[in-house]
Amino acid sequence: MINVAILGYGTVGGGVADVLFDNAKTIAGRVGEELNVKYILDIRDFPGDRFEAKITKDFNAILADDEVRIACETMGGLKPAYDFTKALLEAGKSVCTSNKELVAAHGPELIRIAKEHNCMYLFEASVGGGIPIIRPLLDCLTAEEIDEITGILNGTTNYMLTKMDREGSDYDDVLKEAQANGYAERNPEADVEGYDACRKIAILASLKYQKTVNYEQIYTEGISKITKEDFDYAGLLNRNIKLLGMCREIGEKKYALVAPFLLEESNPLYSVSDVFNGILVHGNMVDNVMFYGRGAGKLPTASAVVSDVVEAAKKPGKPSEIIWSDEALSLDSKDELEFKYLVRMKGNPANGNWEKVFEGAKELDAEIIAGEYAFVTPLMKEGDFLEKYNSLGEAIKFIRVK
Amino acid sequence: MINVAILGYGTVGGGVADVLFDNAKTIAGRVGEELNVKYILDIRDFPGDRFEAKITKDFNAILADDEVRIACETMGGLKPAYDFTKALLEAGKSVCTSNKELVAAHGPELIRIAKEHNCMYLFEASVGGGIPIIRPLLDCLTAEEIDEITGILNGTTNYMLTKMDREGSDYDDVLKEAQANGYAERNPEADVEGYDACRKIAILASLKYQKTVNYEQIYTEGISKITKEDFDYAGLLNRNIKLLGMCREIGEKKYALVAPFLLEESNPLYSVSDVFNGILVHGNMVDNVMFYGRGAGKLPTASAVVSDVVEAAKKPGKPSEIIWSDEALSLDSKDELEFKYLVRMKGNPANGNWEKVFEGAKELDAEIIAGEYAFVTPLMKEGDFLEKYNSLGEAIKFIRVK
Repeated sequence: MINVAILGYGTVGGGVADVLFDNAKTIAGRVGEELNVKYILDIRDFPGDRFEAKITKDFNAILADDEVRIACETMGGLKPAYDFTKALLEAGKSVCTSNKELVAAHGPELIRIAKEHNCMYLFEASVGGGIPIIRPLLDCLTAEEIDEITGILNGTTNYMLTKMDREGSDYDDVLKEAQANGYAERNPEADVEGYDACRKIAILASLKYQKTVNYEQIYTEGISKITKEDFDYAGLLNRNIKLLGMCREIGEKKYALVAPFLLEESNPLYSVSDVFNGILVHGNMVDNVMFYGRGAGKLPTASAVVSDVVEAAKKPGKPSEIIWSDEALSLDSKDELEFKYLVRMKGNPANGNWEKVFEGAKELDAEIIAGEYAFVTPLMKEGDFLEKYNSLGEAIKFIRVK
Repeated sequence: MINVAILGYGTVGGGVADVLFDNAKTIAGRVGEELNVKYILDIRDFPGDRFEAKITKDFNAILADDEVRIACETMGGLKPAYDFTKALLEAGKSVCTSNKELVAAHGPELIRIAKEHNCMYLFEASVGGGIPIIRPLLDCLTAEEIDEITGILNGTTNYMLTKMDREGSDYDDVLKEAQANGYAERNPEADVEGYDACRKIAILASLKYQKTVNYEQIYTEGISKITKEDFDYAGLLNRNIKLLGMCREIGEKKYALVAPFLLEESNPLYSVSDVFNGILVHGNMVDNVMFYGRGAGKLPTASAVVSDVVEAAKKPGKPSEIIWSDEALSLDSKDELEFKYLVRMKGNPANGNWEKVFEGAKELDAEIIAGEYAFVTPLMKEGDFLEKYNSLGEAIKFIRVK
């Protein structure tokens, strides 16, 4: 029997307990041994809970218990999750987590500590919820030179964008609705401004490059400025608007950004709707591969945490194989990346100098809003685009086109 | 340096050589050692080929060479692939293959032999081409009780169905086109009658149940009877027609079948178009997870073979972990499965007794063909459906609706 501790009995922690209990027999068959939840750490009381007897407020008891070989860190946030994780790893206990903030901020250090103590720091659940993505990236696509990872990495914003697309709703209305049904938090900034997607693409990029991509260096633009009129323009182009996290390697250059994009129907991410996530990986041999599923939610996220527990349980004493060094990777400027751009303009297309500024740009042939027009530029470097865009007198906004 | 032999220098075998050579540096970084193609076995000559010096006709030289630790079996077919694979495994050499016929026919025996000789028999490429599916199923979704696997598993038929859907073409025309551009073989039976998809779902079902699902026991219906009018009816229902391989577990009952289905837009497989494959896995915790990519083709398939080579190379002397016993799994009758059905009828809907026979069935409210009508049944067991369907005087055909 292998004893497991769960740190944090919130949504994901509760899910981990449920998955370990309800799928116990199947999981034991895969591990070759039973897994037993010995402790659940939380500062709150849970009278009447089915796991009440396992709940403790004493972290040190868990740390000191040699029977506990694996801990699931489902507290979220940096404090005290960082200190707890470090102490557990230093005691040779593997830690499996869904905590993307901690992984993005301290991943390489915690992986190093795990290796030094012959245990594992695993974080499949930190990106894409229940979707297997980290293990496939590291263990399956091993014959590939991966040059791009693009993902719909945040379920809240994807739910909102899907609603706006299908129902022609306004941003403010879908945000209120998402908050009302629990898909968005009261303070929705982390989701809608792209910060959550940014941490996730930082983790994927770090795993790809095996060095540390600092999420603060990633250009990040959320969806809070997307309007229903933008969707009308997207519709004219038979496109959808999706918030993408992206890292791309071109020769020696390495890029990452988070921004809303106009996607065409042939892009596999186009059909990833509602709260679902999708991660598209492009390799030089395999072309596009996509991993799709529930990017959040109690049980899907818990399932990914428990898949890490199974890995740790099957390989006692084996250090993490993940290569992610502390060395900072310096990203190149996104201004070197090439996109097309949808540009919305005030005034009359006949009067503007847009056709001269953007040679080869194509005007959209329908009027969405009186007194406005729009065009799509050819593929061009973002730096060149921005310079020209800023020179236009009557530009309203632009959205990247992929 | 780890020496590798490639058996069969056809499309996939050539791709394996290309991937190992062109991505050598990246792959060596992952393995921790260089991989070297020492032999390529083929009965043909390849004058001027970039790997000409490695080509041999002598299988026994490969078998006897202790330096060769891993072989890629990319010959296809049962003979001599079976004998070669067996001999190599008995000599302790791991074998990685794309040969779904051999895996479906002799998988459990070859896995057992590999285990007995501390080497591996790996076959990621046998299902879904370049898509990681076998390893994710075995190593990632380990916290799940998987109750259904449904896949678009054959690129040729998916290409044809996509063409019929988009262009309103006839079956015979798209088949000719697919043959002309190399997507379909001159004898297309294995693809269009569903036999290829059947072997693939047999492999996935065997891995799910850890016993042997005999592909000959799987009810298999291909696409050769699908017409452009069927797509017109599907369009009326906002649905697409896809050839699905499916295995489903309900309680103690275990089912598998291959057949064309009408899929609704919300099904993630709906958008899997052209030669792409998609495999949807449903678990009790994670809900739906989909794996998408190129299900065939030289380099994608080779990429999957080489990912197996990387695994075998990283774990010398370690036996296959795959659990798939020789014990036959007896499938339950597909007549117990529940579907809805689109039924096409001759005559006038007012005169038929279809509404009495199929209580709750809904007529489609547009005439696709003069003198025909169609309806969709409620969800019902296939056995009940067939009995009632066969009692209808003027039925033309039916297609399952998922």
